[in-house]
Amino acid sequence: MSQRQMRVEDKVMGDSGVMERLAADTKIGYSLDRRFYCDDAVFAADMQRVVGRKWIVAGHIDRVRHKGDYFLFRIGDESIIIVRSDESTVNAFYNVCRHRGSLICTKPQGRVARLTCGYHAWSYGLDGALLAARLMPDDFEKKDNGLQRCHVRVFHGFIFINLADEAPVDFDATFGDLAPYLDFHGFANAKIAHSQSYPTSANWKLIVENFVECYHCVSAHPEFCSMHPAEALVAFGAGPSSGPAEAVEKYLPTVRAWEARAAGLGRPIGTVDDPPDSTHLRLLLQRTIREGYETETQDGRPASSLMGKRAGWDQGRMYLSFSPFTQLVATNDFAVLFLFTPRSTMHTDVDLYWLVDGKASEVDVKRMIWGWDQTTKQDKEITENNQAGILSKHYRPGRYSEHERRVVSFQQWYLAQFGHALA
Amino acid sequence: MSQRQMRVEDKVMGDSGVMERLAADTKIGYSLDRRFYCDDAVFAADMQRVVGRKWIVAGHIDRVRHKGDYFLFRIGDESIIIVRSDESTVNAFYNVCRHRGSLICTKPQGRVARLTCGYHAWSYGLDGALLAARLMPDDFEKKDNGLQRCHVRVFHGFIFINLADEAPVDFDATFGDLAPYLDFHGFANAKIAHSQSYPTSANWKLIVENFVECYHCVSAHPEFCSMHPAEALVAFGAGPSSGPAEAVEKYLPTVRAWEARAAGLGRPIGTVDDPPDSTHLRLLLQRTIREGYETETQDGRPASSLMGKRAGWDQGRMYLSFSPFTQLVATNDFAVLFLFTPRSTMHTDVDLYWLVDGKASEVDVKRMIWGWDQTTKQDKEITENNQAGILSKHYRPGRYSEHERRVVSFQQWYLAQFGHALA
Amino acid sequence: MSQRQMRVEDKVMGDSGVMERLAADTKIGYSLDRRFYCDDAVFAADMQRVVGRKWIVAGHIDRVRHKGDYFLFRIGDESIIIVRSDESTVNAFYNVCRHRGSLICTKPQGRVARLTCGYHAWSYGLDGALLAARLMPDDFEKKDNGLQRCHVRVFHGFIFINLADEAPVDFDATFGDLAPYLDFHGFANAKIAHSQSYPTSANWKLIVENFVECYHCVSAHPEFCSMHPAEALVAFGAGPSSGPAEAVEKYLPTVRAWEARAAGLGRPIGTVDDPPDSTHLRLLLQRTIREGYETETQDGRPASSLMGKRAGWDQGRMYLSFSPFTQLVATNDFAVLFLFTPRSTMHTDVDLYWLVDGKASEVDVKRMIWGWDQTTKQDKEITENNQAGILSKHYRPGRYSEHERRVVSFQQWYLAQFGHALA
Repeated sequence: MSQRQMRVEDKVMGDSGVMERLAADTKIGYSLDRRFYCDDAVFAADMQRVVGRKWIVAGHIDRVRHKGDYFLFRIGDESIIIVRSDESTVNAFYNVCRHRGSLICTKPQGRVARLTCGYHAWSYGLDGALLAARLMPDDFEKKDNGLQRCHVRVFHGFIFINLADEAPVDFDATFGDLAPYLDFHGFANAKIAHSQSYPTSANWKLIVENFVECYHCVSAHPEFCSMHPAEALVAFGAGPSSGPAEAVEKYLPTVRAWEARAAGLGRPIGTVDDPPDSTHLRLLLQRTIREGYETETQDGRPASSLMGKRAGWDQGRMYLSFSPFTQLVATNDFAVLFLFTPRSTMHTDVDLYWLVDGKASEVDVKRMIWGWDQTTKQDKEITENNQAGILSKHYRPGRYSEHERRVVSFQQWYLAQFGHALA
Repeated sequence: MSQRQMRVEDKVMGDSGVMERLAADTKIGYSLDRRFYCDDAVFAADMQRVVGRKWIVAGHIDRVRHKGDYFLFRIGDESIIIVRSDESTVNAFYNVCRHRGSLICTKPQGRVARLTCGYHAWSYGLDGALLAARLMPDDFEKKDNGLQRCHVRVFHGFIFINLADEAPVDFDATFGDLAPYLDFHGFANAKIAHSQSYPTSANWKLIVENFVECYHCVSAHPEFCSMHPAEALVAFGAGPSSGPAEAVEKYLPTVRAWEARAAGLGRPIGTVDDPPDSTHLRLLLQRTIREGYETETQDGRPASSLMGKRAGWDQGRMYLSFSPFTQLVATNDFAVLFLFTPRSTMHTDVDLYWLVDGKASEVDVKRMIWGWDQTTKQDKEITENNQAGILSKHYRPGRYSEHERRVVSFQQWYLAQFGHALA
Repeated sequence: MSQRQMRVEDKVMGDSGVMERLAADTKIGYSLDRRFYCDDAVFAADMQRVVGRKWIVAGHIDRVRHKGDYFLFRIGDESIIIVRSDESTVNAFYNVCRHRGSLICTKPQGRVARLTCGYHAWSYGLDGALLAARLMPDDFEKKDNGLQRCHVRVFHGFIFINLADEAPVDFDATFGDLAPYLDFHGFANAKIAHSQSYPTSANWKLIVENFVECYHCVSAHPEFCSMHPAEALVAFGAGPSSGPAEAVEKYLPTVRAWEARAAGLGRPIGTVDDPPDSTHLRLLLQRTIREGYETETQDGRPASSLMGKRAGWDQGRMYLSFSPFTQLVATNDFAVLFLFTPRSTMHTDVDLYWLVDGKASEVDVKRMIWGWDQTTKQDKEITENNQAGILSKHYRPGRYSEHERRVVSFQQWYLAQFGHALA
């Protein structure tokens, strides 16, 4: 078979051959080839080999507090029903009737006694078992026709799903070490104070690459920068001590002093920084916010009460990336959960959930969302312009700055999912 | 050539190889593979082998009563001009100028003396002959440049077209036996009292499959059910005596008694039930409506006067499927013509025409359309949800109920168009 | 490799094989095969072999009068920044940041001191040199990371760009002989009095084919016809003396008399009529407008003052086609520049600029645009109907009239770009 024919197939079938050649052409320290961002075959491969195999947060437990509460999570072409069946169980099912394939739930959320398909009224229990199907042949077995399960795991309030057909990577081995941090913040009992969607016309990798570097913060995010020490963004913007040596040296004493102070208030101190050959490329990073600020609001004053097990305000923040698809920023009084969900080659859902302490009685939503609402709108514009520029046949992979090291790590991790290493 | 390459070709060319493999994977009694509903190659094959070879109703003669009256019928990528050229002739032409290919008629309907292209004013007679074309070379022959004809046949008021390039299946041999029924209802002289469009984002086969079963009526169509005996929907919903034996036994005496009564009023009694290896899979089925009702309206009272040759109200209804693309429901005082017209893989035009007796003077349109307007809106929602669910990679062909036998017949008929039998 | 496989590749890759087969099927004097107008592979080939190698006008110098003035020109998937860097220099750059590929300019026009990317603030001079990029590795060379240039040439006020990767065809050898005509009209100092966009859902070739023939003028353009001698449209509509012999004979004396009169007023008289094997298929044609009219307005009265070096009103007009993509019509007091810019297979930007003398103080915009605004709206409708008709599988290449000779020339020229001759 000629090289020419191979390429034809790749275009159509989205096999891994295209990835192999593209990976071979990729140089470490440079942005990716345009096909990684624009090609339907690459997106199909991404869905199969990356998105389809990771534990991805679909939402927070606060959306399904009561039995029968459900919401739909859409990813790629899939619609997943996340539903609570009893006090201790949250299930995830593919939203496809076993009869003729109709969507079962058509509203984005609700509370139901059963999952009943609106078409022919096939009715499933909250555990997915088929309960009622009229007039079926005698040899039809209800027990063989329950809803198809999607892997699901609730961990400190976060509902993770995994689209893998086979057994997915072990959850506890992957995320277990995060427990003390999540526990301290009280995420299991947190509640959603606000949520907002910023659907973005860009490939999911552009959205991740944008989020994992702060090289663009100075030029693009004045509100964000106003809440942080300038030296922190340079020194820690791309990961712990990732910035130029002198910037790190300048900021490190501040962090160390804060760590001691925060630890005194009971806060677990530590860092998680997965290498590119890890399964989920997690990052947990804690640092100070702007001096004199108690939280990430316009004036630094709190928007809610202290979250979790906190004994006092410590002027710190935690950034936690569960995976490139799920990001979390936690201040003392609220946290923002970012879900980056691939839908098609050049469309990605970006959904933000603002979480507050489960017992918080007064939340100033407007002040709480000020920073990340502005910043995410800016990021939407930035990444859409990035995608538009990459459509040009004159786009060439460009050199990364020292401030974008974590973008390189992400690309290494991404190519490793296809068995390729960055040269 | 490897199997891999074959599949690439299928994807692109829409040849019959893809149909062969898909047909081989189809099991009788189960819904079809997702590619039948989502794949552009399958749709191209459908247009060529199924849609392109059947007699399909494009409209009713009432739309072209006078010389020069025309309307456009759009099917797939084609626009067809249906135009009356004289008292006894209705023509169908492809709406493509023989000069440079422009649409000739651009308004959906009208009355014209000639068919004149708005671009360079080439002008055709109502019989398609090229009458005027300025400044053409000497060897240009007008007689070779008439409009391209589409096969057309008017039968009891219904305008059938056939897109076949070659001679289509014989019309009279196919539909001749329906004459007595159509004549009794007076369709040749009927008039259109109302029409409405319900364009639906679903593959045409989903729309047909939905229409030929009443398993979903109880859950999805309260208005429709209110006008019918519950036992009739179970016993006759999927064809004459198609329901479970006990339901048929329960309802059959009612039908038989009605047949005797209706025959007494001059109504032709009988059934047509084409097998899956027929060319058009016709079905003609007559039965009673809800007891005490005279017609299919909310309160059962008439919305118009008696249609056709009726001597009195007989509380019956006729369901007539000319083909999967053309459905007809006739009560005593009005009939509803359903046109299901494939436009693209996941878009189908659904157009309803309410017909009344040609001499009807007072028609209560609102009451007349109540049932089928509601029902068709519900069907649009149902089939769009069905299509959306089938997009999931987790859709699996599901088992049919006993109430969906005619869906199975439709699938057998459909696959037979490609020379395949359901295993 | 079988013929079948070849075609699969063509569909996907847009190589020149498809063009070869299509060209072989094309007959001189007939409209083109539908694939030329509808097929993405053909469009990709067009962009590479035709659009990508021609000098195409992107706009008039009046848009970038002052240092830092810029506008964006979009063609295919490309966005080009046209920007003035000093009094004597206009540059054209691909609007793609060398860092990560973002669009640099996102507003359609403006005035800037530098070209600064909104993403990470990489900043380029007006000459494209990279001036600022923070925190880059030591071995990063700014001089290797300037903006990518697009070939650009300003000629008598018209800004030509050329997307060729290699050295494009020599500009002066191609257009130099037009200088006297352009100079007389004063285009270098003209100003834009009005501009308007008419984006058209049709392949670019349909738009060109429509513009280069006046066979449709009588039926489609009453306003246009009202401003011209009927015999001129027949005799000269498809090029100098292109009409039927008797029409030419009838009109020629009028033109000759006008030429003498106009020459007396200092106007350069002459004709340019490139053959189909030329690089740009230029046409320059001068003739009279309607008797008694001074310009192309509804009542023939001027809408502005005399353009350029004119000594008096001469009742003539110049039609100048720089290439199929750039057309110009000049009356005594204003000129209309037509830019036909391919964007995708069935979408073309159509942008009109009305130019007046640089010293014109009072311009009656409403009266000036009356003719071409109406005419271009009509052309948009005509070509969109043409495209819609060609989608039909029953479209067949049709015979051209004697009045469409220049469409044939265009097609010969077009196929010659792929190395094919019309049989």
